[in-house]
Amino acid sequence: MEKLRKIGFSKLTPLDHAMEKLFSKLQINPIEEVEILNALNRILAEDIKSEMDIPPFDRSAMDGYAIKAEDSFGASPKNPKKIKLVGTIEIGEFPGLKINEGEGIKISTGAPLPEGSDAVIKIEDTEIDNNLISLYTSLVPGKNIARKGEDIKKGTLVLNGGIDLKAEHIALLTSLGFQKIKVRIKTKVSIFSSGDELVEPGEPLKPGKIYNSNTSMITALTTQYGGMVLTGETVEDDKEAIKRKLFEAVEDSQIIIFTGGTSVGTKDYLPEIINESGLVLTHGIAMRPGAPALIGHLNKTLIFCLPGTPVAAYVAFLRIVGPTLRKMLGCSIIDPRIEIIAAINKDVPVSGLGYLHYLRVKIEKQFDNFIAIPVKLKGSGVISSLTESDGIVEIPPHQEGLKKGEKVIVKLFP
Amino acid sequence: MEKLRKIGFSKLTPLDHAMEKLFSKLQINPIEEVEILNALNRILAEDIKSEMDIPPFDRSAMDGYAIKAEDSFGASPKNPKKIKLVGTIEIGEFPGLKINEGEGIKISTGAPLPEGSDAVIKIEDTEIDNNLISLYTSLVPGKNIARKGEDIKKGTLVLNGGIDLKAEHIALLTSLGFQKIKVRIKTKVSIFSSGDELVEPGEPLKPGKIYNSNTSMITALTTQYGGMVLTGETVEDDKEAIKRKLFEAVEDSQIIIFTGGTSVGTKDYLPEIINESGLVLTHGIAMRPGAPALIGHLNKTLIFCLPGTPVAAYVAFLRIVGPTLRKMLGCSIIDPRIEIIAAINKDVPVSGLGYLHYLRVKIEKQFDNFIAIPVKLKGSGVISSLTESDGIVEIPPHQEGLKKGEKVIVKLFP
Repeated sequence: MEKLRKIGFSKLTPLDHAMEKLFSKLQINPIEEVEILNALNRILAEDIKSEMDIPPFDRSAMDGYAIKAEDSFGASPKNPKKIKLVGTIEIGEFPGLKINEGEGIKISTGAPLPEGSDAVIKIEDTEIDNNLISLYTSLVPGKNIARKGEDIKKGTLVLNGGIDLKAEHIALLTSLGFQKIKVRIKTKVSIFSSGDELVEPGEPLKPGKIYNSNTSMITALTTQYGGMVLTGETVEDDKEAIKRKLFEAVEDSQIIIFTGGTSVGTKDYLPEIINESGLVLTHGIAMRPGAPALIGHLNKTLIFCLPGTPVAAYVAFLRIVGPTLRKMLGCSIIDPRIEIIAAINKDVPVSGLGYLHYLRVKIEKQFDNFIAIPVKLKGSGVISSLTESDGIVEIPPHQEGLKKGEKVIVKLFP
Repeated sequence: MEKLRKIGFSKLTPLDHAMEKLFSKLQINPIEEVEILNALNRILAEDIKSEMDIPPFDRSAMDGYAIKAEDSFGASPKNPKKIKLVGTIEIGEFPGLKINEGEGIKISTGAPLPEGSDAVIKIEDTEIDNNLISLYTSLVPGKNIARKGEDIKKGTLVLNGGIDLKAEHIALLTSLGFQKIKVRIKTKVSIFSSGDELVEPGEPLKPGKIYNSNTSMITALTTQYGGMVLTGETVEDDKEAIKRKLFEAVEDSQIIIFTGGTSVGTKDYLPEIINESGLVLTHGIAMRPGAPALIGHLNKTLIFCLPGTPVAAYVAFLRIVGPTLRKMLGCSIIDPRIEIIAAINKDVPVSGLGYLHYLRVKIEKQFDNFIAIPVKLKGSGVISSLTESDGIVEIPPHQEGLKKGEKVIVKLFP
């Protein structure tokens, strides 16, 4: 350990390898049933097949008259065709009415089409006098009708398990009659920041100290990624204190996230503690920022130790912890960030081959294209480089940098 | 009224005009203070200026030795320079130490730089023997140091009121010592779906009936757009029943959203009711789908009547209700949807000039570009056209359609 501390990381693991190793250990969370109205942003836990046709019957798509289309053939404003009104069907009714040649039934949008009818003429294209309807336009069969099963046929797979439930999915599920729905139970997460320099917001700031921003940031990120935060605390930089918190949290947490204390400095106790009590899967990842990250476990609890500098912690969360949380929720897309294609607006050299580099960029629209503008690159402690950016460009380890005008993929911040 | 019912809308208002008229009546919600940990996704209500420098002192960005850079000039592995170790500064300490020429102080990442030092040499680039430090590399002044105020200078405007608070903003605010933060109070919203055809999910479906999917969809959307849903109910298609619900909800709702009953059919009571009891600002908007939408108010409560067909209700929400909710929250970006630039993969004619058309599309990546693929266009009741799409392309009223290969802006679903 002394040697490691002195020389830095002797070996850095490629991120992909670290994640593969980690994912091979993961178990997907069990399922719970929630009311559909509480399902927003939850992860659907099962494939959904429709047990019914949508719409469940042929219905009118307009307010008008259900007719036989051929009764309208040749009709025009100057040469209206006339048919007889024989009834009315309101929406929600199912009176079992029927029409014959030369007959029409008044019908509302969404009401079931009467037998014998194959088109609906809009009320605006008609006039009625006594019980005689004048048709002012010619209709093709099927006009203004929504056919039974046109939206969804009974038995169709309509949603795949693993999606993020949004308003449109909730609409679809309720239209199929679902009142409750199976989703993945949220992952229980405890969050600790260690560092003798950390002071809680609200307290006075003494010389040499800084406010702890990591607990709140990681709490927010964990929530955004579908985790349930059990606790978020600052721990003093003391081996026994950290151990105590770790052993306590292990009891009810599926994931414990530490920020700080994970590098190779004298007071970086976490690697030691996890080595002694649990198992270190990976320590030191070939990415910048974020290299000191540690992935390990203690009993069944996963442990992530992220660098203490906020930007490094943020990036390491997005690339390591976030995807793990979503993998445990059974998400089909484990990295939910939206991708934008943009042209980089200047040359960007990278300082060390072999590292995956994360470049913070701002996006601007120029005519029909997006431009990615690198935000000041200095310092992984610089939180304003995040609030001033829109997303991140990843420069792979084997690439020497980016050339001005090159197209890049920007992953927007979640 | 009878005439209007028969002939459809005599006049449709352009969406922009309708929104202008509406926005001129809007008041921004009052402010409340919340714990920073509960501020995720809330709307910041004030500009934030930093009352401190970040970092608050010059600090080391590495584990190593604080030195005078000139003591390292010319140093290399073959020709190390030697200086004397005169102390240690741990993170969180502020011992007021000082170095002179030929001296170094052991320092942790994040610890305050001692007076007299202008660079930090990484521990990996040194060796120590007794109290003599060998420097194996030459440093420029400022190397591995984060300067006081380098991230944020005291007095700088760091965040603008009106932004959506995400993890990175919460990190920034806590790093400035904020424990609580001012956000806009959420808008209180009541949601009603009317229609005699509607059955609640979970109940058996009789002939001619369909499950009500609008209440749950609009509830989810309102939540996503920062509203607080007071109630979501189905109302029978009866003028007195609708009036009763409306008058009840007006008491404590800032916004009431109806779906259904807003067109010009026999059972579309809402326009009549609002005309009699309140004020209709706009009824009938030149967009497809969504044309029958109504915007009005009753006392101080805004009333939106959206079409009953789910896709039309969805689109009308995104373009009318959502931006209103965000305007009331003081959002600087009232339409929060992310825009993607894509090439449309086929000709898309539009059926009626003068309407703003909403085209649902799926996005695919092809090499370095995004392609937008129109999803089946039929029917605004077809919810699966939403769940199968990624977003919407807007075709302006004066445009006759889209040409294959044309670049379009896709607004992703929220």
